[in-house]
Amino acid sequence: MDFREHIERLDKMGKLVRIKSLVSKDTELMPLVRLQFRGLPEEERKAFFFGNVTDAKGKRYAIPVVVEALAASKEIFAIGIRATPETIREKLVNAQLHPIPPELVNRGVCQEEVHVGGSLKEHGGLEEFPVPISTPGFDKAPYTSFSHLITKDPDTGKVNIGNYRSQMKSPTLMGVMVHPTQHIGIHWAKCRKRGKPLQAALVIGTDPAISFAANSKIPYEAEEYAVAGGVVGEPIKVVKCKTVDIEVPDSAEIVVEGLITTEYFEPEAPFGENTGYMGYEMMNPFYEITAITHRKNPIFGGIISQFPPSESTKMRQISYESSYYAFLRYACNISGILDVAFHETGGGSRFCVIRMRKTSRSQPWQALNAAVSFDAAIGKIFIVVDEDIDPRDPDAVHWALATRMQPDRDLRIREGRTVMLDYSAIPPGIVGEGEGKLYPEPTGASALVIDATLKWDYPPVCLPEKKYMEKAIEIWKAEGLPPLKLKAPWYGYSLGFWTKENEETARWAVEGDYVRCGEKDKGRRRKVEECPRR
Amino acid sequence: MDFREHIERLDKMGKLVRIKSLVSKDTELMPLVRLQFRGLPEEERKAFFFGNVTDAKGKRYAIPVVVEALAASKEIFAIGIRATPETIREKLVNAQLHPIPPELVNRGVCQEEVHVGGSLKEHGGLEEFPVPISTPGFDKAPYTSFSHLITKDPDTGKVNIGNYRSQMKSPTLMGVMVHPTQHIGIHWAKCRKRGKPLQAALVIGTDPAISFAANSKIPYEAEEYAVAGGVVGEPIKVVKCKTVDIEVPDSAEIVVEGLITTEYFEPEAPFGENTGYMGYEMMNPFYEITAITHRKNPIFGGIISQFPPSESTKMRQISYESSYYAFLRYACNISGILDVAFHETGGGSRFCVIRMRKTSRSQPWQALNAAVSFDAAIGKIFIVVDEDIDPRDPDAVHWALATRMQPDRDLRIREGRTVMLDYSAIPPGIVGEGEGKLYPEPTGASALVIDATLKWDYPPVCLPEKKYMEKAIEIWKAEGLPPLKLKAPWYGYSLGFWTKENEETARWAVEGDYVRCGEKDKGRRRKVEECPRR
Repeated sequence: MDFREHIERLDKMGKLVRIKSLVSKDTELMPLVRLQFRGLPEEERKAFFFGNVTDAKGKRYAIPVVVEALAASKEIFAIGIRATPETIREKLVNAQLHPIPPELVNRGVCQEEVHVGGSLKEHGGLEEFPVPISTPGFDKAPYTSFSHLITKDPDTGKVNIGNYRSQMKSPTLMGVMVHPTQHIGIHWAKCRKRGKPLQAALVIGTDPAISFAANSKIPYEAEEYAVAGGVVGEPIKVVKCKTVDIEVPDSAEIVVEGLITTEYFEPEAPFGENTGYMGYEMMNPFYEITAITHRKNPIFGGIISQFPPSESTKMRQISYESSYYAFLRYACNISGILDVAFHETGGGSRFCVIRMRKTSRSQPWQALNAAVSFDAAIGKIFIVVDEDIDPRDPDAVHWALATRMQPDRDLRIREGRTVMLDYSAIPPGIVGEGEGKLYPEPTGASALVIDATLKWDYPPVCLPEKKYMEKAIEIWKAEGLPPLKLKAPWYGYSLGFWTKENEETARWAVEGDYVRCGEKDKGRRRKVEECPRR
Repeated sequence: MDFREHIERLDKMGKLVRIKSLVSKDTELMPLVRLQFRGLPEEERKAFFFGNVTDAKGKRYAIPVVVEALAASKEIFAIGIRATPETIREKLVNAQLHPIPPELVNRGVCQEEVHVGGSLKEHGGLEEFPVPISTPGFDKAPYTSFSHLITKDPDTGKVNIGNYRSQMKSPTLMGVMVHPTQHIGIHWAKCRKRGKPLQAALVIGTDPAISFAANSKIPYEAEEYAVAGGVVGEPIKVVKCKTVDIEVPDSAEIVVEGLITTEYFEPEAPFGENTGYMGYEMMNPFYEITAITHRKNPIFGGIISQFPPSESTKMRQISYESSYYAFLRYACNISGILDVAFHETGGGSRFCVIRMRKTSRSQPWQALNAAVSFDAAIGKIFIVVDEDIDPRDPDAVHWALATRMQPDRDLRIREGRTVMLDYSAIPPGIVGEGEGKLYPEPTGASALVIDATLKWDYPPVCLPEKKYMEKAIEIWKAEGLPPLKLKAPWYGYSLGFWTKENEETARWAVEGDYVRCGEKDKGRRRKVEECPRR
C-alpha cells in the first residue's frame, strides 16, 4: 500500500475531509486542521485533503496537500497499519519480533520525475511543493513535517529512518535538527570524524507502516524498513537514490536528496514542540539539496506535531504504549500489567498511567520503578491504577488519586532524570547551551511515581447493579433521550468488603421488603453508652 | 419561589425531562437518572419528572417524583438561585455577607393536609410517598435524599438546616446519620445531656435557595434560613410545625415531623457516598415520626448523592468553590487568586485546582498552605496553576503538571489531616469504630500540594496566532464541518521568552519571505568546533 492508496482507503471509510475553499498554506491550512484537535473529540477527527492551495504571495499550486493522514486518531493510525484499534499493540509488538528485510528493486514510481542540476532550480526546488507553515505567527519558515530522513551508519551501512522536521531556508537549502543522542546524530558524528558530509534522503508521503517505524523508538541495531516490512507482512520495496547512496521506498510521493554538512552550524528553529511551547533556536547543521525526485502528480504530506493532542503525540503515544507494555509485561515479567496509557496532554510521553491486576502489594512499586528506569527522559508522572480504572480517562484517574491513595504513604519522587524539552527543569535560555541542559545540577530532573491502587478491600462502587443499569438503558432509549456515551464505571460492583448479610438486605430492599431490614436493625438496637465512641 | 414554581421554570427553559413510562421507584427510577451522569456532558443534563411511578410490589403512586431539580448542572443550580453560571459566586458570597432573617407566618400550604395520630397510619405514613432506592443492589432500604433536617440548639434556639439522607425502617421510623462534628451532632449531644430526644422536622421540596443553604458549610452561628433569605433578597416565610417546636418553610411540599432518640443507636446504612463507594454501616440514632404534613397534590423530590459526578457533588463543588475563593482572596488577602475549582471526580471536595496570576514566587505557596489550613478534612490534592490554565479541565491541569512542575522542587506532602469518608487512610472495617478513624496514627492522613505555575518565562504556546485561528474558524464554518467545542488554549500566545527578532522573522515567514530568515541564519553560520558543545 502506498500513500495515495491509504488516502483513498481513508476516503472510502469516511475518514477524509476534502476542503473546497482556496486555502493559503502559509496562514490558513494548518490552523484549519488545528481546530479539530482543540475542538472535536478524537473519534470525529479526520485527515484533511487540500486540493486548492495558494500562498502568501498568491501563487497557486498544482500539488495538493494532505495533513493528518497518519494519526489524526487511533482509528486512522490503525487503518494505516492494516489493524483495528484493538489489534494495534499485537501488530506492532509482532512486527518488532518478526522483521522482514526490504527488497531492492530497479525502478520506482518515486522517480517518475527527476530534477537534478539545472532542472532542480528550473522546477523551483522545494518551492515546487506547497510546504505549509505549521504555527503561523511564531514559526520563522515553512517546515517539512511528514519528513522521514534516511541516513546510513558510515561504518556498517545500517540504515536509520527518523522523522525530523526541516526548516526551508531557500529553494535548495534546509535546516535540520540533528540531536546528538538520536541515531542520526551518531551517523553525523561518524561522518564528521571522517571529514565528510552525511548523505541523506528526505522522504515525504509513504506507506504509513514506514512512518510508524520512523516514529518509533527501536534499538540502534534494528532497521526501520524491516520493522515496516514486519508490519505489512512482506518486504518494503526500495530503489537507489539518484545522487546519494541511500535507498528510498519505491512508491514514495516525493524524495529530496542531499548532503548534511558536518562542518558548519547555523541557527535552526523556533518550531513548536509536543510540550505545547515553541522550541527555541539551536545551532544545527543544514541540508544542501542535490536532487528532487517525485511521482507524477505527487501529493504533498504534512503532519501536526506541536500543541498536544496532535498527530505526532498520537503516534508517540501508541508507540510508547507498545514499548512500555512489552518492557513491563515481558522484559520485567510483571504478570499483573494490563495496560499502559500515555496521555496526549503530556505530549504522549510525560503523563503515564499503568493499569494492573496486582498479585502482591509490591507489584505496583515494581512497575513504577521499572517504568522510571526504561528511559531517563520519558515520563514525568507515573501512576499505577487498578483493573477497574480506565487509565486513559483523566476523570477516572483523578477518582483513583482522590480515593485510593495517601500521599505520605503512596507517593515518591525519583531524581536523576534527564531533561527532554522540559522548560520546567531549566530556563529556556539555558536549554540548548552546554551539558547542563540535560541534567540540572545537582540531582537532575525528577519524576513523580504514585501507587493509586486499593491497599485493602473496599465497599462496592456506589452505582446501581449492572442489571438495573441495563434496564435503565432500555427505558432511556424507549423515552427517546439523547445518545449516551457511558464512561466506566457505569454500574456498581464489589471491591471485596461486602458481606452475605449486606447482599441479603439489599435484596430485601429491591423486593419491597425494606421493613425486614428495619426490623433487623431494631434487633441490634443498643443503648448509646454501650456503643463504641465515635 | 417554591419548589413547584422552580420545576415549572426548569420546564420552560428546556431543563426538565418528563418520563412517560411506568417506572419502578425501587429498581428503575434512580438508575435512569444515573445514566445522564455517566453518559451525558454536563450541559445536556436535566431534571427528571416521573409522573407514573410504581414499586417492587406493583403499587401505583398518585404522587410524582422529581429528581435532580437542584443541581443536575451548574446551569440548573443557577436557575434555582435566580443567577447565571457567571454570577453564582457573587450571589452566594453576597448572601452570606447580607443575610435576611426569616418571617414567621400563621398558615402555610405545607400544612394543607395534616396526618397525625391515627390519621398518620391511615395514610400509610412514609409509604404515602414513592421514596426511591438510590443504589438498587446495594442499599438496604429506600432513603429520603432531598431531605433537609431542621433542628434547634436547645440552649440558644439557633436553627440548623442540613441535608441528611434518612433510611426508611418502617412507615413511621427512619434511621438518621448524626455525625458528631456536624451541627446536628452538637444539637443531639446537648439533648442527650438533658435526657431528652432531639425534636426535628424533615422537609422535602423547598425553594432551591433553602437547599443551597442546607448544603453549605456556613458557620455554626449563622442561620441557614437567613442565608437563603440573602439569596432570594427577602425573608423566607416559615410556619410552626404541628407536633414539634420547629419552623418549616410555608411552601414546602412535604414535612415529616418527629423525635430523634438520644437514648439508642441502631445500625444505619449502607448508603452510597460521594467518594464513589458504598458508605458502610454505622451505629446511629433513629427518628420516630410524630406527624406528616404536606401540600395538596405534593411533589416528592429526590437527589442523587452517590458516585461522582452527581447532584450532591455539584452542590458541594459550587459551595466549596465560593467558600475557598472568599477565604483565599479576602480572608488571606492573596491578591493573585482568580478562581478555585473543586473537581467533581473527587466528590467535589478532594481534588482542588487554584488559578492564580501570581505577583511573587511565594504566592502559590501561600495559597497552598492557606488552602490546606482551611479545613482539616477537605482536599487531598491541591494544585496551583497559572492564569492561562483552565482549572476545571483535567487535560489542561495535566498539561501544566507535565510541563511547568518539577516534582522534587514544586511538590510537598502535608500531614496531620483528618479523614472524612476516605477508605485509603484507614481500612473500612475500622472506619466508624473509635477515634482512630479520624486521625490515622501517628501523623494523620495527608494531602499533596503542588505549585504547577511557570517558574520563569517560557517561549510561546505553539498554536497559530489568534488571528489565524479566527480566520480558520471562518473557513471551518464555510466548509460545513462539525460544530467545534474549543478548549483553552486554542491559539498561541507569548509566555515572556520571545524577542523582537523572533517576532520579525515570524512575520517574514507569513509574508512569504522565509528566504530572508534563511539568509539571516546563514549570516550566523559558524564552524561546528566554534559552537558550544551540545
